[in-house]
Amino acid sequence: MNFRIEHDTMGEVQVPADKYWGAQTERSRNNFKIGPEASMPKEVIDAFAYLKKAAAYTNTDCGILPEEKRDLIAKVCDEILNGDHYNEFPLVIWQTGSGTQSNMNVNEVVANRAHVIQGNTLGSGKTFIHPNDDVNKSQSSNDTYPTAMHIAAYKMVLHTTIPGVEKLRDTLKQKSEAFKDVVKIGRTHLMDATPLTLGQEFSGYVSQLDHCLKAIKNTLSHLSELALGGTAVGTGINTPKGYDVKVAEYIAQFTGLPFITAENKFEALAAHDAMVESHGALKQLAVALMKIANDIRMMASGPRSGIGEIFIPENEPGSSIMPGKVNPTQSEALTMVAAQVMGNDVTISIGGSNGHYELNVFKPVIAANFLQSARLLGDACVSFNDHCAIGIEPNYDGIKKHVNNSLMLVTALNPHIGYENAAKIAKKAHKENKSLREVALELGLLTDEQFDNWVRPEDMIGGLK
Amino acid sequence: MNFRIEHDTMGEVQVPADKYWGAQTERSRNNFKIGPEASMPKEVIDAFAYLKKAAAYTNTDCGILPEEKRDLIAKVCDEILNGDHYNEFPLVIWQTGSGTQSNMNVNEVVANRAHVIQGNTLGSGKTFIHPNDDVNKSQSSNDTYPTAMHIAAYKMVLHTTIPGVEKLRDTLKQKSEAFKDVVKIGRTHLMDATPLTLGQEFSGYVSQLDHCLKAIKNTLSHLSELALGGTAVGTGINTPKGYDVKVAEYIAQFTGLPFITAENKFEALAAHDAMVESHGALKQLAVALMKIANDIRMMASGPRSGIGEIFIPENEPGSSIMPGKVNPTQSEALTMVAAQVMGNDVTISIGGSNGHYELNVFKPVIAANFLQSARLLGDACVSFNDHCAIGIEPNYDGIKKHVNNSLMLVTALNPHIGYENAAKIAKKAHKENKSLREVALELGLLTDEQFDNWVRPEDMIGGLK
Amino acid sequence: MNFRIEHDTMGEVQVPADKYWGAQTERSRNNFKIGPEASMPKEVIDAFAYLKKAAAYTNTDCGILPEEKRDLIAKVCDEILNGDHYNEFPLVIWQTGSGTQSNMNVNEVVANRAHVIQGNTLGSGKTFIHPNDDVNKSQSSNDTYPTAMHIAAYKMVLHTTIPGVEKLRDTLKQKSEAFKDVVKIGRTHLMDATPLTLGQEFSGYVSQLDHCLKAIKNTLSHLSELALGGTAVGTGINTPKGYDVKVAEYIAQFTGLPFITAENKFEALAAHDAMVESHGALKQLAVALMKIANDIRMMASGPRSGIGEIFIPENEPGSSIMPGKVNPTQSEALTMVAAQVMGNDVTISIGGSNGHYELNVFKPVIAANFLQSARLLGDACVSFNDHCAIGIEPNYDGIKKHVNNSLMLVTALNPHIGYENAAKIAKKAHKENKSLREVALELGLLTDEQFDNWVRPEDMIGGLK
Amino acid sequence: MNFRIEHDTMGEVQVPADKYWGAQTERSRNNFKIGPEASMPKEVIDAFAYLKKAAAYTNTDCGILPEEKRDLIAKVCDEILNGDHYNEFPLVIWQTGSGTQSNMNVNEVVANRAHVIQGNTLGSGKTFIHPNDDVNKSQSSNDTYPTAMHIAAYKMVLHTTIPGVEKLRDTLKQKSEAFKDVVKIGRTHLMDATPLTLGQEFSGYVSQLDHCLKAIKNTLSHLSELALGGTAVGTGINTPKGYDVKVAEYIAQFTGLPFITAENKFEALAAHDAMVESHGALKQLAVALMKIANDIRMMASGPRSGIGEIFIPENEPGSSIMPGKVNPTQSEALTMVAAQVMGNDVTISIGGSNGHYELNVFKPVIAANFLQSARLLGDACVSFNDHCAIGIEPNYDGIKKHVNNSLMLVTALNPHIGYENAAKIAKKAHKENKSLREVALELGLLTDEQFDNWVRPEDMIGGLK
Repeated sequence: MNFRIEHDTMGEVQVPADKYWGAQTERSRNNFKIGPEASMPKEVIDAFAYLKKAAAYTNTDCGILPEEKRDLIAKVCDEILNGDHYNEFPLVIWQTGSGTQSNMNVNEVVANRAHVIQGNTLGSGKTFIHPNDDVNKSQSSNDTYPTAMHIAAYKMVLHTTIPGVEKLRDTLKQKSEAFKDVVKIGRTHLMDATPLTLGQEFSGYVSQLDHCLKAIKNTLSHLSELALGGTAVGTGINTPKGYDVKVAEYIAQFTGLPFITAENKFEALAAHDAMVESHGALKQLAVALMKIANDIRMMASGPRSGIGEIFIPENEPGSSIMPGKVNPTQSEALTMVAAQVMGNDVTISIGGSNGHYELNVFKPVIAANFLQSARLLGDACVSFNDHCAIGIEPNYDGIKKHVNNSLMLVTALNPHIGYENAAKIAKKAHKENKSLREVALELGLLTDEQFDNWVRPEDMIGGLK
Repeated sequence: MNFRIEHDTMGEVQVPADKYWGAQTERSRNNFKIGPEASMPKEVIDAFAYLKKAAAYTNTDCGILPEEKRDLIAKVCDEILNGDHYNEFPLVIWQTGSGTQSNMNVNEVVANRAHVIQGNTLGSGKTFIHPNDDVNKSQSSNDTYPTAMHIAAYKMVLHTTIPGVEKLRDTLKQKSEAFKDVVKIGRTHLMDATPLTLGQEFSGYVSQLDHCLKAIKNTLSHLSELALGGTAVGTGINTPKGYDVKVAEYIAQFTGLPFITAENKFEALAAHDAMVESHGALKQLAVALMKIANDIRMMASGPRSGIGEIFIPENEPGSSIMPGKVNPTQSEALTMVAAQVMGNDVTISIGGSNGHYELNVFKPVIAANFLQSARLLGDACVSFNDHCAIGIEPNYDGIKKHVNNSLMLVTALNPHIGYENAAKIAKKAHKENKSLREVALELGLLTDEQFDNWVRPEDMIGGLK
Repeated sequence: MNFRIEHDTMGEVQVPADKYWGAQTERSRNNFKIGPEASMPKEVIDAFAYLKKAAAYTNTDCGILPEEKRDLIAKVCDEILNGDHYNEFPLVIWQTGSGTQSNMNVNEVVANRAHVIQGNTLGSGKTFIHPNDDVNKSQSSNDTYPTAMHIAAYKMVLHTTIPGVEKLRDTLKQKSEAFKDVVKIGRTHLMDATPLTLGQEFSGYVSQLDHCLKAIKNTLSHLSELALGGTAVGTGINTPKGYDVKVAEYIAQFTGLPFITAENKFEALAAHDAMVESHGALKQLAVALMKIANDIRMMASGPRSGIGEIFIPENEPGSSIMPGKVNPTQSEALTMVAAQVMGNDVTISIGGSNGHYELNVFKPVIAANFLQSARLLGDACVSFNDHCAIGIEPNYDGIKKHVNNSLMLVTALNPHIGYENAAKIAKKAHKENKSLREVALELGLLTDEQFDNWVRPEDMIGGLK
Repeated sequence: MNFRIEHDTMGEVQVPADKYWGAQTERSRNNFKIGPEASMPKEVIDAFAYLKKAAAYTNTDCGILPEEKRDLIAKVCDEILNGDHYNEFPLVIWQTGSGTQSNMNVNEVVANRAHVIQGNTLGSGKTFIHPNDDVNKSQSSNDTYPTAMHIAAYKMVLHTTIPGVEKLRDTLKQKSEAFKDVVKIGRTHLMDATPLTLGQEFSGYVSQLDHCLKAIKNTLSHLSELALGGTAVGTGINTPKGYDVKVAEYIAQFTGLPFITAENKFEALAAHDAMVESHGALKQLAVALMKIANDIRMMASGPRSGIGEIFIPENEPGSSIMPGKVNPTQSEALTMVAAQVMGNDVTISIGGSNGHYELNVFKPVIAANFLQSARLLGDACVSFNDHCAIGIEPNYDGIKKHVNNSLMLVTALNPHIGYENAAKIAKKAHKENKSLREVALELGLLTDEQFDNWVRPEDMIGGLK
């Protein structure tokens, strides 16, 4: 491989000749060979592009950066956001806990790319844009990285998680309405209980997801607070007056999202409770999805020896010889995602709790786990929706068989033949493994017609939806 | 021990002669010898008392329970709430996952205690109040236990957790203001950084707690939803019209808290996302408190060989011979509580994710962990406040020593003697382990007076508070 | 309440007149009102009694404690171990993280109780035994508390957890053998699969528990290492020569367990990896039990609309009117315990990871969570064994129905009529909801007798155990 | 993009024309767009290559696969192991929970690649090797995937984790010996305590890592058990006699690792306790590393206002102007890894606990989290070793200053001037912020020479290592 020589305050470093990154990025590459290369999430890089551009605009507005530099910085940031430079960000999550090296990676790439845009050759001559003095002006790793975390997290939640959940929620709502008259056996403790409708059962899932959406949205205001302007320790040293408010406005403008400057910059650098808070809501969503996906796979189980109350779409060959073996693979993917998110929540909590003094240094691991959770949940909801939920249909035969066989229906006879007679029927039916109707007629306690009129599961499902 | 004979649908059971509980409670006692006796939280018992009373009132209003029975039931419930009968609830958390047996425990105690109130002898004659037909009327374990969970959890959060946090928050706010002019060295990566005030540092803690309080309060509306009225599977079978709304109103009235009936009873029985959600906010609080308590014990470390920037109250002998060894015992208790809450969050999430069909059967473990967390957090905040935070004072000598020694102050010289000269001073000072002033004078780069005028940490703390 | 005045190095304290504890215990009571009183596990107190007695014997052997004092100390320790003084230990888990105050509680109780044993009045006159100079001789909280943790944890694992697991394991082994010829449908992805025997299914549970027992036992050697002799920071300052080895020998002798002195005392004070390690194995057990208990409740589900392949004992009324509603309450208790243990594991890991320098100060929370897990697992295994596992019986009708209905049996026809014909039968049977036999005859592909001879689930269960 | 048409039992699928994978892989790609593409760990693919080759050899030995097919299959497996085909495995973790689709991915790639090796054109003509009938012969996804998990996990632990830990352990052991005479202040509760040597402190870290290594190795025997031979449900249906033992022997031979066939195949498919067990030990390692890395960064803190007792290597510019700001970035990376592993442990436990009947369907998420943890821990230990531990040097000035200033040294005077006089010195020194020597002389209690002779920290470090 060809190299060029780059410098930083510690001296010379050999950098791959064709890469825009510089000395500090290269040092980090060499010093942190932990896990696969380039694991720092791309969403964090994008978020840096937004904030570097916003900082440049703010610096120019504050009179400390020439427009020409601003425009050059902004141009490179736009290229990054366009996805043109992802292979210029080779660093890993497992670097310095402030994310400093990824901040420098962005600074270096912007400066060198601008150099080339201006018609120069990479590595020859001094760059017009200085990575520290220009790209990083009025900033510190300590406030840029947490700002990038919030931008990336907010975007992912808003653009991936919430729409995914809403899509699934809407489908389940539709199903809930479509199935509103499908009376089925209820189950508590996994045991037969009084009936309800399949629509009522699905309405519980809808209600869970509605509450999850509300919970997630409740956390967004904390997440909308940006650390930028706090610089090294939260005091905002080396920032021009009004910088923090204005830079947040630019970020809001460029991202189209309601970001504001954090009221307290000391919290914003030293703690990541906003990430903990939002991920707590994502974890609640994981808990809810685990419940829903479990129910659906249990109700779809069979085809002969399971519960068999619903059909789910057949997306893959389940068994080459056995028809009807439709494995609930979407439930499996979704529950695996839920398990991942529940573990990620612990990682984020541990990271969040271990900030010291003016800086929390678990930033990259918090960011990476959050983004993974938010993305997986959104993607998995869409996948589960498109390849499973949308195609769920009642197995009317299975449902009817279970509800009609159920001994719980005997409760409907209480008002007509008394509790004791009803119980007598149920006990005999259970003991002799017969149907309630069969035994009721055998015992001469009522007629076939009376059974039809009195034992009506559809009358036992209450007025609650 | 003396016994009397009690009956349930399975037959006879020997019950301690002097106890109000009945057959089903006794069966549970014998069948679940898991951990110490009577571990079911008392707050759950109290919550049952509220809801049994509310159900009696509602049943009477709906015309299905005589006033005489209502008043007797209410009287016993009031006695329970008065703490008169805690030794009548011997059951453990580790029973049936619906909490059925604790529901029956309450039903049996109410019926038998009412029997005695009416002047009868315990165990002789039929009780006027029937545990199932009267005390449990229009109810099922499946909707009472989750209702009790929400009542108990809401009360604990509102009456213990939040006031505890607010108390600590107010003290830290006071300290933040009192220390607003105490300039100290900042630390990032645990390393010396630019200065800030001790008040600014504390303002970060206040901001964390403010956000925690907001996050906790955001979750209360979900927690205010009560399952009662859903009965066995959520359909509300066997409840009179309007029962669910009215019973929630009575509970709101008796507790003085804004409870409402859950919009969707299927969720309310089958999932406990509301508990997951609120405990997520408690876990965020644990994360924040861990950070704050760690900072405070690190800043108080010493007396000679630590950081030594604050004094904390001396509450216990730290060392018999060594004065000044004031162990940060309140920080230790608080961080142990935080660790407990972070683990409880996992337990609750696992329990919450494992509901099946119409019923989640991890109810008691969810309730117990939630109540422990909410109580410990509230108590620990008060303890930390009263025995530590309130007595925190700056160690002016220590603070001054650190800030004055710091090499970071050299940045203040940049505008006056240029970056290169400033860096030269810092490097020499570091290498020769001298003060900046000493070296600056040695190098003849400025005068003693100039040093005083230019190197002013108090000018480096920015406009941000 | 009556009080007497006690002193410590900080001055006077009012102590309840009739209690043996002294000034430092009372200070802790007042300073740590966090959660219910006296939450420090009794097993830790017992362990302290063992170690104080062992220390006294060792000190006497080393010539630094008179025999009379040794014998008095030992006498009180024996009383404590006899359970005579549990109400003398009012302190909570949430105290100083070194457990110092519980160590002092023991020291004070021993000194004052000895005073009374000698015929003196509590609180009058100077005690012959000094809490620090005698009871605590050659010790520090920093080495006594972790020693007590290991003693208590080891005992609980050996005397409660392991026997409980072994009991359940033996029952499941018996069932596995008893059910070895009961051919049933297998299920993968919850869907019907090729058959196996019920005995094979249970053999998997036995294998899980065997591996768990092995894993737990693997951790005991680390847990057998005792910190005692390390004193304040691990150097063993203020201990006589040979003290650490000898005191461990006495503890081994008094407890009958193979304790040894820790090879490295610095680890033993500053880290609790041994507790983390052993609890990791307990967590593995929780994971295994969750799987087993889930399987059993799913197989017992019904009575009409579930899986219904086994019967479990009916221990409580499940439903007053519905016979056969046998709720799997023991599975519910066991899975709740599993959820608790999985959460406790996180608490212990967080506590374990946060030791600093020479001392980990999350000792009490680690001890309490460990002991809870170990006890609950042991108790719950016994409960599940006695009230569930031991009474499990196959539901032959249910098993037969499922296995005979299964379409997977068609694979047995491949060698006789070819894969394509076999698949044709299966597809038609699935589509028309008929039995394989019915369709095979309809299609004229084989005779009734051939079907009997060829489709034999018992030939499909392989040679594996 | 160009496509070719592939078929499976469900019909036609368009597959990228130049890829070796087939219909089932392509269906999975389309049905599981969850997270980034190709997230299934490469180590799992490699493990499949080992097991497919071993299965082919065993099948040939058992007389059911021609040698020509065996050799072709083996050739492709060797190519995969050579890294030639990683871009042929596009599937994600979040697929079916049995990993079926990755098993089919391997089967399809082997069949099609063999076709091309034989000189055919991809997609034209029937393949000589059939993905199911040949590559998957005597196998099922249900036993291949867990076998691949164990192979991949065992290899990663043995080849990456353990050597990484051993490397770090050896360095710390060297440091412990090198620093054996460097007397420093001890710290408990973060407060000054009696002295020890820096070497003793490091010996605690060595002991932790030694115990971790032992704990990890204890778990390897469970992990060495392979599921292969259990096929669909653990009964081994469709495997030739002796297959399971022989195939494990081939895997052992090809990998050079001591794999054996699992004694109980039902456990091996339905539970992943072996993965839970080994990851429990990895989590213990994470806990230990968190402690060690925290200590080192706290001891290195400063340069002026921290603890400053050791120097760590300067790998990156910490601050452009502030010399000596050597951020403990390796500690930060290591503690972030520890946080990740602690969260992964929860994910794995949740996945492990949720197996149902004959199959656990959280296999890919368990595998992926395990492999991430094992790799990150190994890599991070090497990184921390090479870029931090190896360069740790005592800051003699800082150590000396702290130990000499310490008031705890006064305990050395007890035997000479009595406890009361010693305490008097300490109190006065603390109050007046003077040194012990200064005050001792002031009070006339001893001479300068006596102070030198009596107050010798090096005599207070005990005889313990």
